[in-house]
Amino acid sequence: MTHRIALIPGDGIGIPVLEAAMRVAEKASPGLLEAESFPWSCDHYLQTGRMMPEDGIETLRGFDAIFLGAVGWPEKVPDAVSLHGLLLPIRKAFVQYANIRPHRLLPGVQGPLRKDAFDILCIRENTEGEYSGAGGRVHQGTGDEVAVETAIFTRTGVERILRFGFEQAMGRSKRLASVTKSNAQKYSMVFWDEVTRELAAEFPEVQVSHYHVDAIAARMVMAPETLDVVVASNLFGDILTDLGAAIQGGLGFAASANIDPTGKSPSMFEPVHGSAPDIAHLGTANPIAAMWSLVMMLEHLGEVETAARIMRAVEATTARGIGTVPGRDKTDEITAAVLSALEE
Amino acid sequence: MTHRIALIPGDGIGIPVLEAAMRVAEKASPGLLEAESFPWSCDHYLQTGRMMPEDGIETLRGFDAIFLGAVGWPEKVPDAVSLHGLLLPIRKAFVQYANIRPHRLLPGVQGPLRKDAFDILCIRENTEGEYSGAGGRVHQGTGDEVAVETAIFTRTGVERILRFGFEQAMGRSKRLASVTKSNAQKYSMVFWDEVTRELAAEFPEVQVSHYHVDAIAARMVMAPETLDVVVASNLFGDILTDLGAAIQGGLGFAASANIDPTGKSPSMFEPVHGSAPDIAHLGTANPIAAMWSLVMMLEHLGEVETAARIMRAVEATTARGIGTVPGRDKTDEITAAVLSALEE
Ligand SMILES: CC(C)[C@H](C(=O)O)[C@@H](O)C(=O)O
Ligand SMILES: CC(C)[C@H](C(=O)O)[C@@H](O)C(=O)O
Repeated sequence: MTHRIALIPGDGIGIPVLEAAMRVAEKASPGLLEAESFPWSCDHYLQTGRMMPEDGIETLRGFDAIFLGAVGWPEKVPDAVSLHGLLLPIRKAFVQYANIRPHRLLPGVQGPLRKDAFDILCIRENTEGEYSGAGGRVHQGTGDEVAVETAIFTRTGVERILRFGFEQAMGRSKRLASVTKSNAQKYSMVFWDEVTRELAAEFPEVQVSHYHVDAIAARMVMAPETLDVVVASNLFGDILTDLGAAIQGGLGFAASANIDPTGKSPSMFEPVHGSAPDIAHLGTANPIAAMWSLVMMLEHLGEVETAARIMRAVEATTARGIGTVPGRDKTDEITAAVLSALEE
Repeated sequence: MTHRIALIPGDGIGIPVLEAAMRVAEKASPGLLEAESFPWSCDHYLQTGRMMPEDGIETLRGFDAIFLGAVGWPEKVPDAVSLHGLLLPIRKAFVQYANIRPHRLLPGVQGPLRKDAFDILCIRENTEGEYSGAGGRVHQGTGDEVAVETAIFTRTGVERILRFGFEQAMGRSKRLASVTKSNAQKYSMVFWDEVTRELAAEFPEVQVSHYHVDAIAARMVMAPETLDVVVASNLFGDILTDLGAAIQGGLGFAASANIDPTGKSPSMFEPVHGSAPDIAHLGTANPIAAMWSLVMMLEHLGEVETAARIMRAVEATTARGIGTVPGRDKTDEITAAVLSALEE
């Protein structure tokens, strides 16, 4: 069975890492993925005035999954424009409310922490909250200017991501960490805590811990081995997953899946690293995060065996010390190593 | 000259650490601080229905500084109530807009990172932004519930904290990292970026870097040595300074000053750690963070020599391995060691 994939390489290192991952996919299972590539990006914006065409979302809807490289190049287009024009609308339009990001050290990778035994699965709310895009500015440019940014949390949004978190916890260690800042944000985060407590009653087997975001950020560095499934709002999940990427050795290793768990819309898979304009010309972008994201995409599409084979090849590569040190190896070398590991 | 200090031990380990720090102050310079203690806390709330009396702020106004232990005991009083009833109103009422938190490893302390050479000064906005307390909930308790939490940033608030950050940078390495999330929050954080750029023009000697909060969180773990002065909003500063506490070996070492730089109101000094109800009965609260906060208070009061002597005694103590491992040594032992180091 062939799966139709929309490829959005996007900007900067998004382009070479996606190409690398697709070579691996084709080698692992020729013809399994039928990809169509879309040039939507900051360059596209400069040419057309839009990050993606007006019917971009409708175009994507027909695919089985979306594989995205990275969006953003602040020197060309302000981030607030590029991200609100491409990445964020896809997450929202396709109700990809669960952003899943695994954090563990691949073999051969030395992380920045002295501790190296941890395995955290971050579940990030992906459609609302602090990313609602509601707000405005008055008295702009004057000494009286005020800017407001409103986080909006709905019952539907909070409940479904927490439920997803509880379900993931049931499939792992049955331990769930729920992240808020309810000591300072007394509307949104107190609400989140309440819904967490309600769902905890539905999942009596799951042991729930409540953390403030500052405390769990510290814990991820001091005692990451005490965490398993972590569920957080859009912004808190964003911060914690970059931190997760850091403790797993850097953004070159951090994969993610933006899932619509109902299956009604296509889900999107992307490395966490972003476009990294500063290193885009060096040819040293690490394709491992993109390959791991590909693995998550294949799992989502039900191709668990191919996914497992690719993951084994990636791990065999890092175990040999290839692609393990940020900026040292060329994208092509790392890709070649994974391709040859696939033959073993 | 005697300085009048309002002591608010508060809850949990706030009480023993403040007592320990005051013993050190008295030993270092007998009679220098004239302290009056206030029992405001969660227990006080249970007795009186208020975290502090209605005229609490007016009472505090007469002091030269406030020395606070910790506030909060969620099993007694919801955090949202206790913090909004005591800690947060003091920061706001006295326009303590600059929350200063130093992050470096004290001698003898092994941090969680392999890297140990860093010296970061976090400057956190302390009066508005994501902690404005504006928001509400509709359709409460129903499936249609919506909770909103509005971050409010004013020109005055943003400009003064950034100016303070630039000034601190001028007094250190002339490198300033400004933290936003302007790729996702297009009103508040884009505004912050604009004001940063304006001030950068006023301080041409300062080299400014713009980081998204997720990226700088990762950087604090991957490459903390590349950061010096970091200026961030209330929430981002909260998260980054707990992370700073983590990389400096834990919350037992993290000091803070809540400063009104105009000098019109009393400033407040507090360890970052919080009340830690779970370990409050063990007698192992680390008083080092409170002592370091005392040092910051003495510096603020112009007592730089006494401050330096206490800091040397604290560092001599940790250099001997006392108070360096969370939970191992008793508060009293650590305090005794600092007191005797003061005699050397
Ligand atoms: C680029 C940015 C808008 C995005 C986010 O904040 O969601 C990124 O940091 C991520 O984590 O996927
Ligand atoms: C207790 C809490 C409200 C407080 C804050 O978030 O400001 C604390 O975490 C801190 O960092 O001082």
